[in-house]
Amino acid sequence: MSIAEIGEFGLISRVVARLGTGSAALLGPGDDAAVVAAPDGRVVASTDVLVEGRHFRRDWSGPADIGHRAAAANLADIAAMGATPTALLVAFCAPADLDVAWAEELAGGLSEEAALVGASVVGGDMSSSRTITIAVTALGDLGGRPPVVRSGAQPGDVVAIAGRTGHAAAGYTILSRGFRTPKMLVEAYRRPEVPYAAGPSAATHGATSMIDVSDGLLQDLGHIAAAGVVGIDVRTDAFEVPGPMRDAAAALGVDPYQWLLAGGEDHALVATFPPGAALPGGWREIGTVHNGTGITVDRKAWSGPAGWDHFR
Amino acid sequence: MSIAEIGEFGLISRVVARLGTGSAALLGPGDDAAVVAAPDGRVVASTDVLVEGRHFRRDWSGPADIGHRAAAANLADIAAMGATPTALLVAFCAPADLDVAWAEELAGGLSEEAALVGASVVGGDMSSSRTITIAVTALGDLGGRPPVVRSGAQPGDVVAIAGRTGHAAAGYTILSRGFRTPKMLVEAYRRPEVPYAAGPSAATHGATSMIDVSDGLLQDLGHIAAAGVVGIDVRTDAFEVPGPMRDAAAALGVDPYQWLLAGGEDHALVATFPPGAALPGGWREIGTVHNGTGITVDRKAWSGPAGWDHFR
Repeated sequence: MSIAEIGEFGLISRVVARLGTGSAALLGPGDDAAVVAAPDGRVVASTDVLVEGRHFRRDWSGPADIGHRAAAANLADIAAMGATPTALLVAFCAPADLDVAWAEELAGGLSEEAALVGASVVGGDMSSSRTITIAVTALGDLGGRPPVVRSGAQPGDVVAIAGRTGHAAAGYTILSRGFRTPKMLVEAYRRPEVPYAAGPSAATHGATSMIDVSDGLLQDLGHIAAAGVVGIDVRTDAFEVPGPMRDAAAALGVDPYQWLLAGGEDHALVATFPPGAALPGGWREIGTVHNGTGITVDRKAWSGPAGWDHFR
Repeated sequence: MSIAEIGEFGLISRVVARLGTGSAALLGPGDDAAVVAAPDGRVVASTDVLVEGRHFRRDWSGPADIGHRAAAANLADIAAMGATPTALLVAFCAPADLDVAWAEELAGGLSEEAALVGASVVGGDMSSSRTITIAVTALGDLGGRPPVVRSGAQPGDVVAIAGRTGHAAAGYTILSRGFRTPKMLVEAYRRPEVPYAAGPSAATHGATSMIDVSDGLLQDLGHIAAAGVVGIDVRTDAFEVPGPMRDAAAALGVDPYQWLLAGGEDHALVATFPPGAALPGGWREIGTVHNGTGITVDRKAWSGPAGWDHFR
């Protein structure tokens, strides 16, 4: 059954039936706007958009996978401020001949990923379009803490990471070469595992800056270096190449460190902590901040691409 | 100069230069997420998406017009809850060969419309796409008042409107028949004049339900009737047909009441008030709520379309 057959309001009612309710949702879908609890007196807000053919392919990912990934990209941005996600709003554009079940499963994936952090989809909008487009806005609460911004890194700080890198990039390369295994990497591309709790935890442990790795570790650390007017050196010996990644890299003729250091979309969190600070659980040291500019790897310039540009 | 030539980050810096800063923007664009004041302890949030070919045409509207309209559609939703808008987030998708100036002027329009209510664009995302798509999320503050929802209308209530209807629909019909005048109606289509302040004002005057007229007055009143399980009768003698609209309707062979009663996109606010309530400034009575179901016009069924479905 196509969306055209049931119309905009038919689609809305079917999609809304797939959504859960988080504790912060004071007024959910169905009115002109939602009302979300903001107990801190401030709200953290971020928007991320996924476009078919650019961010996902329907032959590589199912609709629930795409929902998980769209939600994760946004929820990770909230976590990267040291905040706890509270709600999502979703703008969904699709051709009128799209199967209704596809949209319902997308909503299910969005809702399930949000539920991992106690959040829910509280509103949205739908339109026909020849290009499937999913724009998600996430809201979050700082719980009384200052936001952890990109600009606070100081020379001498420790650079640490929570979560994994390179997995989604490896999965993407594998799929783009026509393979479907190793399954662990393909699944990592389809549904990132984001260390959401590590964001607020870093904030309470004094993180001086933080960002989520959406475009590539070196590129995203580049934003921290530029914002803080500091240099950052990353040590490759801090990264272990998992067995399936080593095998895939060998089979495909790829340097696995290109995935680990420049691959995006796993939505790891990377942060800087004052020297000597005890890192909270889930965080591990990968480098240092110094009095310089730009990013080096093992004290040398990185020769490969550092990340992703959405218009190039 | 195309977006491809300056890349994603080049585009972001040029667009951000066009954005102002509202008083609620505690942390604006440039980090993983924005931080917006939510003094009420709750935040009102709404998302609306505009798609090229569906919601706008580049030969009918300039980029600044489209920015104004995208912002207005969202800010009106916040006002319709009785809240004051505080911030916008914008997801922007466009082909890489789009002229950079187009995106900059779009940002200028979004920013100018937001500034009308003291709000500003605090964040967003960009991606390439073959379809220009603008998804806007608006946030707002209730100032301690309960939200005015769609479901509160009671039999005996007065139905009142703030702002105009039919103007944008008339402008749309005029443009779609290949004309460019009357200018007043074409401009109304390009840049709606939304009575933002009438939303909070209705809330403080005891409005029992409220909605913004985005799809068509009768269709949107239908949502209020359905949510409140009441009937609503609209009186045509409450509507004056402006001279330019009468002329255009005669020239094009259209019933002007079709525009006034079923045309969307002017983003008037329509609300119900308890019987005998003094209507706040800018509001005028157009009908009554009764113990029934559905919408009637002068106590009769309406024979034309009631509004717009985005998938049909």
